Amino acid sequence: MRMTDIIAAKRDGQILSEEQIRDMIERYVADEIPDYQMSAMMMAIYFQGMTDRELTVLTDAMAKSGDMVDLSEIQGIKVDKHSTGGVGDKTTLIAAPIAAACGVKVAKMSGKGLGFTGGTVDKLEAIPGFRTVLDRKEFFDVVNRTGLSVIGQSGNLAPADKKLYALRDVTATVESIPLIAASIMSKKLAAGSDCILLDVKTGSGAFMSGREDARALAEKMVRIGTLAGRKTIALITNMEEPLGNYIGNSLEVAEAVETLRGNGPEDLTELSVELAANMLYLAQKGELETCRQQAAAVLADGTALECLKAMAAAQGGDPESLSDTSLLPRAPYSREVKAKTEGFIAGLDAKMCGMASGLLGAGRETKDSVIDPGAGIILHKKTNDYVMAGEPIATLYTSKEELFPEAVNVLEKAVTLGKAPKGKKQMVYERIV
Amino acid sequence: MRMTDIIAAKRDGQILSEEQIRDMIERYVADEIPDYQMSAMMMAIYFQGMTDRELTVLTDAMAKSGDMVDLSEIQGIKVDKHSTGGVGDKTTLIAAPIAAACGVKVAKMSGKGLGFTGGTVDKLEAIPGFRTVLDRKEFFDVVNRTGLSVIGQSGNLAPADKKLYALRDVTATVESIPLIAASIMSKKLAAGSDCILLDVKTGSGAFMSGREDARALAEKMVRIGTLAGRKTIALITNMEEPLGNYIGNSLEVAEAVETLRGNGPEDLTELSVELAANMLYLAQKGELETCRQQAAAVLADGTALECLKAMAAAQGGDPESLSDTSLLPRAPYSREVKAKTEGFIAGLDAKMCGMASGLLGAGRETKDSVIDPGAGIILHKKTNDYVMAGEPIATLYTSKEELFPEAVNVLEKAVTLGKAPKGKKQMVYERIV
Repeated sequence: MRMTDIIAAKRDGQILSEEQIRDMIERYVADEIPDYQMSAMMMAIYFQGMTDRELTVLTDAMAKSGDMVDLSEIQGIKVDKHSTGGVGDKTTLIAAPIAAACGVKVAKMSGKGLGFTGGTVDKLEAIPGFRTVLDRKEFFDVVNRTGLSVIGQSGNLAPADKKLYALRDVTATVESIPLIAASIMSKKLAAGSDCILLDVKTGSGAFMSGREDARALAEKMVRIGTLAGRKTIALITNMEEPLGNYIGNSLEVAEAVETLRGNGPEDLTELSVELAANMLYLAQKGELETCRQQAAAVLADGTALECLKAMAAAQGGDPESLSDTSLLPRAPYSREVKAKTEGFIAGLDAKMCGMASGLLGAGRETKDSVIDPGAGIILHKKTNDYVMAGEPIATLYTSKEELFPEAVNVLEKAVTLGKAPKGKKQMVYERIV
Repeated sequence: MRMTDIIAAKRDGQILSEEQIRDMIERYVADEIPDYQMSAMMMAIYFQGMTDRELTVLTDAMAKSGDMVDLSEIQGIKVDKHSTGGVGDKTTLIAAPIAAACGVKVAKMSGKGLGFTGGTVDKLEAIPGFRTVLDRKEFFDVVNRTGLSVIGQSGNLAPADKKLYALRDVTATVESIPLIAASIMSKKLAAGSDCILLDVKTGSGAFMSGREDARALAEKMVRIGTLAGRKTIALITNMEEPLGNYIGNSLEVAEAVETLRGNGPEDLTELSVELAANMLYLAQKGELETCRQQAAAVLADGTALECLKAMAAAQGGDPESLSDTSLLPRAPYSREVKAKTEGFIAGLDAKMCGMASGLLGAGRETKDSVIDPGAGIILHKKTNDYVMAGEPIATLYTSKEELFPEAVNVLEKAVTLGKAPKGKKQMVYERIV
């Protein structure tokens, strides 16, 4: 089976056979197919797409190119959660403990964030002492004891995806919904959970800014997961403005704790409960409405927060810092951004807020960049809030004072004022089963 | 200007700027752009195409990636001729001497044939002593003295095309009409003639088997040539059955000589005169009908044959072998293929005839294969001829007897018989100016 013929078949809109797809991925990972053939194939897929069947085989082949994590030593139903990424998105730190408190097992491997915000692993690493590298036995042990564990992604998880992604990045083939779906889902399949909840963000701060694209991606991922034998649900959620009020690694841990105490901002609380409820639903804890009630209950009675603390303690994190979040790292320099005129906040562009946070040191420009855990932004106002001239909209934090001017400049541009409040924002647009 | 952005622009259907295209080709030839980016670009072009302007810039950049031959030391108007390749196509050996006999200068560089038939250079090399490697001075000198010279293509003619073609060959991006047009025309532009006549074959034995594709290719090439400042005409011609009766290198030389003596088969004579007439037209020798008459005249009075002999002698070829073609190499073994039943020849599939000839040793499977100059096929019957059961349809020649069975088998499959003759075959379908 010559690779050139397989490329030609896809180029001509033919459906590739399971054998062709598996052969292609195996040989690519073994360096038997050169990058120049694979990039032509990726571009052909960009134009011709893939059927759900083809995509499921591709995703499975990518997953099986490396370690397939076997979670059978963990009792109960394992539910994974994945977000396509947004600004201020600390929902894993809230929804996963809620799910765990309701008896679901969350054994999650998370990649490091790349871009202007940190990933969940970066956020957890802001907790003093928290270890995100555990061996298999310890990882399973933490999940069995506390109901949840979040660790860094292993080096050999879906290496085909790693190699393909690096190639797509330099050949203008990233922006293909089927290929994005396969990339995300290959890691989820390899990570071994029984069920997968996908949070597909849409809006200015999301990778998929348009609703149609977000829906297409969500549908593809749900199809792949389902065809691969994993119960999969996707929520399409709002990422027009940052989620909650805190952006940055230790700041987001603090806000997650506050939310688990019942004092969180409305948008973050609502979305976290909805995500947790869907995780419970996937784990067959009842109808969705019942699951929402269970989730709300463990949030209200503090058992979800106890789960987060138990996991943190089990992974070496300082439990005190989750009781008194002022013990979390906070960058030494702060600066306020104030409203120049009065009005209602009409928009707080998530992407620009994220960029500002990244400029302050909260993100990672390249794989090797070092994150400033205490850097970030606290938003005092969100969309629909009234602000007087001179009133602070946000406080920026960093360990390098010289980073303020550019970050302030970007944050100021993120804000638009209007004459009247808009309606309540919708957090979940669609649920795809 | 990042290559990834240029790929993305083409992928999204944008028109590339002259600067982007030139930069891309220059850096690719300098090994500064990796194959994996260029193959993605080629696939994007496959899907999105290129405007005539883009294509002309691309072709010019490819031409200028190596030596641009300066033919100004040759007096008069230089006309090049190019065929997209067919079976039994020895028209260059007939049309070029006709054009030269009418005062046109033909300074032609020709590639070696790859596939089942030899190229013009391979055919000429079947003439004992004929040299196809001349230095610049000698090349110009032969053209100035005899009106024509055909030599092998220089190593540094359009190296960008060479590199791109090798990449396209293994990435399923050969079958792109704009890229085929750019590939052919880059070498024609670099070869330096003032005018270009293109013979675009269509039919079973042609690279472009379909008429629509052949027309599209012809139109693209004429646009490129014209926009690049060269007078360019394309003829779309019939390649359903082999051209003339002789296939194979020395056999085709012999048939070309016979045709220049006025004894050639009708199809070959008609097409050769039409090609020569268009070369004269390009060189402003008058209206096309006048040009046809001039061409026919030098064919009839033997001056065209004298031109071929003069060139052959000037390039070291044995002139005797062109007076007595039995002196040309002929393979020692022959075998006849006979009709199994009677009937009219309804078709003589050009591609299969070419394959049979290639199997006998007349072609070149890889760049390094050695051609058997005397191998090939003489067809005793062509389409519309009546054949009795047991009557020979063709004689096959080779230097390796063991090659017969497979070749005979393929040739037998090339023949289809019918109950009545079809109409006269049309040699030139269209003329594109």
